[in-house]
Amino acid sequence: MQDADPAVHDYLHDRVGTLLDGLAAWVRVPSVSADPAHERDVTRSARWLQAHLRETGFPEVEEWDSDGLQTVFGCWPAEDPDAPTLLVYSHHDVRAVKDQEWQEVAPFAPALRQGRMYGRGTSDAKGQVLAHVWALRAHLEATGRGAPAVTLKYLIEGEEEVGSPHLADVVREHADRLAADVVVVSDTMLWSLEEPAVCTGVRGSLNAHLEVRGPRRDVHSGVVAGAAPNPLTELCRLAGLLHDDQGRITLPGFYDSVAEPTAEERRGMAAVPFDTDDWLDRTRSRSVQGEAGFGVLERVWTRPAAEVVTLLGGDPDDPARGVVPAVASADLTLRLVPDQKADTVMAQLRTWVAEQIRDGFAYELTTSPTNQDPYVTPPGHPALASLEDAMSRTLQRPAYRIRNGGGAPAALLAEVLGAPALFFGTGLPEDHWHDSDEKAEVQALVQGAETLAYLLEDLPRRLRA
Amino acid sequence: MQDADPAVHDYLHDRVGTLLDGLAAWVRVPSVSADPAHERDVTRSARWLQAHLRETGFPEVEEWDSDGLQTVFGCWPAEDPDAPTLLVYSHHDVRAVKDQEWQEVAPFAPALRQGRMYGRGTSDAKGQVLAHVWALRAHLEATGRGAPAVTLKYLIEGEEEVGSPHLADVVREHADRLAADVVVVSDTMLWSLEEPAVCTGVRGSLNAHLEVRGPRRDVHSGVVAGAAPNPLTELCRLAGLLHDDQGRITLPGFYDSVAEPTAEERRGMAAVPFDTDDWLDRTRSRSVQGEAGFGVLERVWTRPAAEVVTLLGGDPDDPARGVVPAVASADLTLRLVPDQKADTVMAQLRTWVAEQIRDGFAYELTTSPTNQDPYVTPPGHPALASLEDAMSRTLQRPAYRIRNGGGAPAALLAEVLGAPALFFGTGLPEDHWHDSDEKAEVQALVQGAETLAYLLEDLPRRLRA
Repeated sequence: MQDADPAVHDYLHDRVGTLLDGLAAWVRVPSVSADPAHERDVTRSARWLQAHLRETGFPEVEEWDSDGLQTVFGCWPAEDPDAPTLLVYSHHDVRAVKDQEWQEVAPFAPALRQGRMYGRGTSDAKGQVLAHVWALRAHLEATGRGAPAVTLKYLIEGEEEVGSPHLADVVREHADRLAADVVVVSDTMLWSLEEPAVCTGVRGSLNAHLEVRGPRRDVHSGVVAGAAPNPLTELCRLAGLLHDDQGRITLPGFYDSVAEPTAEERRGMAAVPFDTDDWLDRTRSRSVQGEAGFGVLERVWTRPAAEVVTLLGGDPDDPARGVVPAVASADLTLRLVPDQKADTVMAQLRTWVAEQIRDGFAYELTTSPTNQDPYVTPPGHPALASLEDAMSRTLQRPAYRIRNGGGAPAALLAEVLGAPALFFGTGLPEDHWHDSDEKAEVQALVQGAETLAYLLEDLPRRLRA
Repeated sequence: MQDADPAVHDYLHDRVGTLLDGLAAWVRVPSVSADPAHERDVTRSARWLQAHLRETGFPEVEEWDSDGLQTVFGCWPAEDPDAPTLLVYSHHDVRAVKDQEWQEVAPFAPALRQGRMYGRGTSDAKGQVLAHVWALRAHLEATGRGAPAVTLKYLIEGEEEVGSPHLADVVREHADRLAADVVVVSDTMLWSLEEPAVCTGVRGSLNAHLEVRGPRRDVHSGVVAGAAPNPLTELCRLAGLLHDDQGRITLPGFYDSVAEPTAEERRGMAAVPFDTDDWLDRTRSRSVQGEAGFGVLERVWTRPAAEVVTLLGGDPDDPARGVVPAVASADLTLRLVPDQKADTVMAQLRTWVAEQIRDGFAYELTTSPTNQDPYVTPPGHPALASLEDAMSRTLQRPAYRIRNGGGAPAALLAEVLGAPALFFGTGLPEDHWHDSDEKAEVQALVQGAETLAYLLEDLPRRLRA
């Protein structure tokens, strides 16, 4: 591996304060895409980013609306007309918060403590976006260039946390502007601060909402208990049948198109330093559950999963009325792996529910229009080697190959743009994405910017080789 | 059967308007015991009843507080010192409401429509209590007595709808004042307006709350899905295991002490006119579910049941945060039949959960201190025959024997006071107890008062015979 470039390294380390000031200013904008009350804040967040890109030097900065919350597009052409094009995908919207559960800071009043910046969006994903911007600044400074070595494009959407409902339309509509040789999806996790590890794939996701109806209205439980159709009991029964006693998902055909990782990938994952207690601590997971025959990392990176993420029936928050409830509903999230397709799995789920639910119940099964297919970067692609080198150069150690348990629109971008997707994020499992007390490690942001600066420098050579 | 007494019948029919005016006035007091905001209303409701009893002529009217919401005690001694004593148990508190779901009237703005009075508490149980008061008035008028033929005691509590947390203490503390030869529990259902049917037993009830804990905090579902302990999935799995595929409850030992109804009781129940479609319509139950090998009435009257009545996990009402939730909880209601004991079944449930829940989850299983044991009136007791005659006399048809699917503190009262409990209610399954648009049939109230007037008249003769 090459030595680190002192010019890149020193530039970034000297300007940490400025980087963090910018991140704090952006995090103060509560761009919660799921809450209509914050619609203007998502707009303000998009405007903040546009100003930041213009200030950095991007000659083209645009705001794309497309009926949704604003997507920011930026483009900085390379001087060399033959230079490859790199498209960066990420998002500037954030998840809702439960204010009362934040202990470190109020969610939109970021503060720096012991090398960490706390606040909603510090890690997911405003910090990741700014790592790209500062990588570019360091790249220009270190190389003395007036423009990046690659034509650099940013696509930073404002609806990722609500499932990217307009992203497919935006990408198709602007496919010419977004054309790229490589996409970098920046919304995934690092393995650790010390060990370089390149993420080579994401799981897909399928979100389904199942509403089961029993009595035609809530009925006094004393009157009918034992003879009425209880939608809660039935919904629990269905959820209970979703896994067998080996932790495998029971939808017929579900595993037919699950591609096993290659032997090389398995070896790669097995080489990743892993300690169960450490993982439990970092993910706050209490215990290890799941599919028999696979390790923890295989389960979360390469095996599909089905989780009930919400369930509601009866009057849990209200004074009890002692009724068999008329309705119960649940949200399911299925995580999919290559080569599963979200549409196919949804059809399997639909068939399974129809077959499993007992006569005498009514139900409705709906799905999100914004499900994601899984994606794996072509393992031999030179851009992947370039990213691997960049990471190794930053941390001065050989990089592992890992995957990401969550999803990203990599399959969509790769398909529409005809370009492979890489993954590079600056988050850690212990950063509390979606939860309270989200934080970003300053070290992760600076190291991430350094890695990305090396990628900008190295990519033209690799893709030409 | 004896002919109806025109004096009783005419007295009641002539005064329906006054009875309903009183009921409406009482229903306007929103005595919701589960809502601390209505604490003063429960007091106002108790005061209303006391004034009504004094106005009726009760020489002894008291309010018993006992750390809880007010219990009203009334006593009117018979002139004959050897006359038996009848204790009436019911309640003046009501269930919470969902205002927005009431179509007919606002819940506490009662109105009379087509022979029905709508409003919370019209049927459960203010209407039932007033049927007793008007029975007494008719009894005195028709017999020309200055005091009832039996020493009549009322115990009308204000906490029934929250599980009667102080009732056992109240009954034990005042056992001397409450001493009786027979108890009439008035908080059960009629079978229909036309067919006399005497309720001879109630199911017991056991309420349990199960909280399951998975991750130590909510965790991004992408990061851990497939390897984290999901408390919702586990809670569903447990609930799904609670019944086998024959609809039988799987707690070990659960059926050991379930007493089969006698052949006579089964014949009696089989004789009750029953039509499935009619039952579905009246109970709004959509379909018949339950234990194989038993009919609908056997299931709801003589077989135990286990129902999940609430379940909550994740963020069903909030913007989705995409997390595996840290906690999920459910309320279970078990309906018990002779000779099950709530304490024994709770111990069975505790053992079962401990055995079924998988390693790696934490949980807490709690129960209400106010569970009820089931109760059946001694089938040959002369008071039962007296009630049967009174009902037959009102409707001029022989009475069936039925049971009640819900619970009542009959076992407690019978045990502490050493007196058998009868059941007589004026509600119908289609009265929407606990649900929206609760109503009482005027005909049921008037017929009920007539039956109770005959019982007051007849009981001394029967008990002496």
